[in-house]
Amino acid sequence: MSDWIERDATRVWHGFTQMATFALSEPVIVDRAEGRELIDSEGGRYLDAISSLWVTTLGHRVPDLDAALTDQLGKVAHTTLLGNGNRAVVELCEALARVVPIKDPHFLFASDGASAVEQALKCAVQYWRNIGLDQKSGFLALRDAYHGDTIGALSLGDGFHSEHFDQLRFPVIRSSGYASPGWAEETCSLVAANAERLAAVVIEPLVQAAGGMRIANPEDVRMLAECCRGNEVLLICDEVATGFGRTGSLFASRRCGIQPDLLVLGKGLTGGYLPMSATVASGRVFLTFMGEDLGDRTFYHGHSYGGNALAAAVASRHLELLAEWNVLANVEARSEELGRLLSKRIAPLREVTDVRLCGLLGGVELASWISTRAVCAEAVRRGVLLRSLGQVVPLVPPLTITSDELERIVSALEQAIAAVSENGAHAQ
Amino acid sequence: MSDWIERDATRVWHGFTQMATFALSEPVIVDRAEGRELIDSEGGRYLDAISSLWVTTLGHRVPDLDAALTDQLGKVAHTTLLGNGNRAVVELCEALARVVPIKDPHFLFASDGASAVEQALKCAVQYWRNIGLDQKSGFLALRDAYHGDTIGALSLGDGFHSEHFDQLRFPVIRSSGYASPGWAEETCSLVAANAERLAAVVIEPLVQAAGGMRIANPEDVRMLAECCRGNEVLLICDEVATGFGRTGSLFASRRCGIQPDLLVLGKGLTGGYLPMSATVASGRVFLTFMGEDLGDRTFYHGHSYGGNALAAAVASRHLELLAEWNVLANVEARSEELGRLLSKRIAPLREVTDVRLCGLLGGVELASWISTRAVCAEAVRRGVLLRSLGQVVPLVPPLTITSDELERIVSALEQAIAAVSENGAHAQ
Repeated sequence: MSDWIERDATRVWHGFTQMATFALSEPVIVDRAEGRELIDSEGGRYLDAISSLWVTTLGHRVPDLDAALTDQLGKVAHTTLLGNGNRAVVELCEALARVVPIKDPHFLFASDGASAVEQALKCAVQYWRNIGLDQKSGFLALRDAYHGDTIGALSLGDGFHSEHFDQLRFPVIRSSGYASPGWAEETCSLVAANAERLAAVVIEPLVQAAGGMRIANPEDVRMLAECCRGNEVLLICDEVATGFGRTGSLFASRRCGIQPDLLVLGKGLTGGYLPMSATVASGRVFLTFMGEDLGDRTFYHGHSYGGNALAAAVASRHLELLAEWNVLANVEARSEELGRLLSKRIAPLREVTDVRLCGLLGGVELASWISTRAVCAEAVRRGVLLRSLGQVVPLVPPLTITSDELERIVSALEQAIAAVSENGAHAQ
Repeated sequence: MSDWIERDATRVWHGFTQMATFALSEPVIVDRAEGRELIDSEGGRYLDAISSLWVTTLGHRVPDLDAALTDQLGKVAHTTLLGNGNRAVVELCEALARVVPIKDPHFLFASDGASAVEQALKCAVQYWRNIGLDQKSGFLALRDAYHGDTIGALSLGDGFHSEHFDQLRFPVIRSSGYASPGWAEETCSLVAANAERLAAVVIEPLVQAAGGMRIANPEDVRMLAECCRGNEVLLICDEVATGFGRTGSLFASRRCGIQPDLLVLGKGLTGGYLPMSATVASGRVFLTFMGEDLGDRTFYHGHSYGGNALAAAVASRHLELLAEWNVLANVEARSEELGRLLSKRIAPLREVTDVRLCGLLGGVELASWISTRAVCAEAVRRGVLLRSLGQVVPLVPPLTITSDELERIVSALEQAIAAVSENGAHAQ
């Protein structure tokens, strides 16, 4: 075990990680990075096939993003957005306004994705109160939903041991998730039946990512959006995982042909560089919050570092680079290529029960008798960083991934599955 | 109105801000900064007397912090902490471990302060479950408490229209806050009476900051800590506002002579540069989470950008600078000076009902007939950025503030109060 792993395990508490076994499961303690490779302090190199938990879009150490960051550093790192503003944030909002799938957008910032989900929840409740419909304060969320770990976000979520915090969570109406073929019809029925008490329906449009890379039919998502509109229920689209090109279009909502009332952004917003999340409200929602200073209609919610100027500068440049580099075209081409590689070499394996892919957001589901943890550890030994999610091995490479690198990922996964399967056989 | 204010108001939704009146209330749209001054795009300069909402410690554009950030940028901006690590984070945790007022500390990262509070709440509930006492899942919090705006944090909080979200908040046992002389005795009685169902008591040690700069007697806080220990109830100290020198010692818990079971850090952690928050758990709490991989004892909570490497590098260097520059000595000397200035020139004014100060965390309470909003706007016109908090004008300058700058803040405040008072008289 490297000295760094031991030092890390002594003091750092890693989220979603059993610390008693952390040091034994091939953790990579990153020293530096080059492009899409992470490098540990012994010089070991790992292709970042999970985009550092689905946040890295263009790769690490992108000279243009580094330059945007240092330029802003020469102006100011951070100033408060409470009652005041920052030029870097204004410029970012103007740039985002041109591309987000929402009418007359207004941007509320936070840093954690979960906090932006919480902002959306509170906006939805207060929207109905603002127009005199206080009873509309409930939420509908889907099975296999994941919206973050703070209590409000966790209330919407399903699985990940969230039931252990039931005393703290508020109840939601739960419908089937994308794994069930009839989920949209069921959800629409529930929306219609509960419209009088529902503030909003919350979904991850197109892909339930942390729930196991469950992919919806875009038409089903559109049907739900129309049902929400018809029943006077707000629609909140959580695009923390799907936003910024991950599914092949800039936003998954756009691919579904929908415009939510509230949109949640995070992860890819800064290209994987810095914490920044945002809740985007439509003009219709925003305008109901206008009123007297210090009055009841004000949105009393704000985070100290919301609208951090360094993050805003990086996010603005990142948005330009997505266009300049024609990143979406690479996502489309590489997604097709990855799909073919998986169909040919992974899907047929007896250890594999399903392969799912949307853009460059995908997962390989393994049979219950094989340890996904062990498979990912074997891939790490082969220089490809993977991290399991239940019985799924997520494949979420940077959006600038190359054909050769995809080949490297699939080969490592293939060998890792074989190695674990063989060891398992020996062990029996 | 400057073009930038209009552009800002068109797209940015500012937290805790009525957007219908935002543009009329002298907002500063910051272009850049120098030291402790913010500069808008017309070249207007404003002394940052609120430390950009209480986060800036050493000032803006600190060459040593800029260098730490660009050094790390040359390695990597961010890599995931879920199941893996980063050298910059290990080094930060080792440095923090030497100074935090907690035994055998373990660090869980997030980016918003509220998220770190939520982590602490969930750790407390799960701690008791880990040792078989599931019924201990309740919380006690104080009147005038503020712990953030996500639903869990908001459940602990009191005021700021939090009752509008009662349908989403979980109930807590509420005791008196620092504004009531007998708060500690009352709280201890409630702890003793409810020990069997309490997971933890949550306090802001020494100062309830957002609740109006209410200052406790350190001995009262120590009495409560002893009561918690005696009754087998965890103590969570939220030092988001009070940490990193703000009250005159590195942590307010230390000034009270207490060691909490869980400590929450934010704001000053990165010196005001980048979003980063942390939940610090004692070894006693942490060890109960050891168990099987993927088992029930794992803490299933994690934020994508928790442990951001850029923020960690800045935070490490910031901690060194606090010592190298002997910042605490400046806080002590300037706090005395500010106290004298306020006693002499502000406290005697007929518009002022109270003046409170602890380290460089203070507030001037104005009579209900005078608008604190208008007073702060007048101060901004005089080149000093202030922002009201109910009837309180918070005075929270950077910890490196000079005597001359304190004089400038107090003069601007004095003139602002006079200007508003006079206008008010004319208006009547």
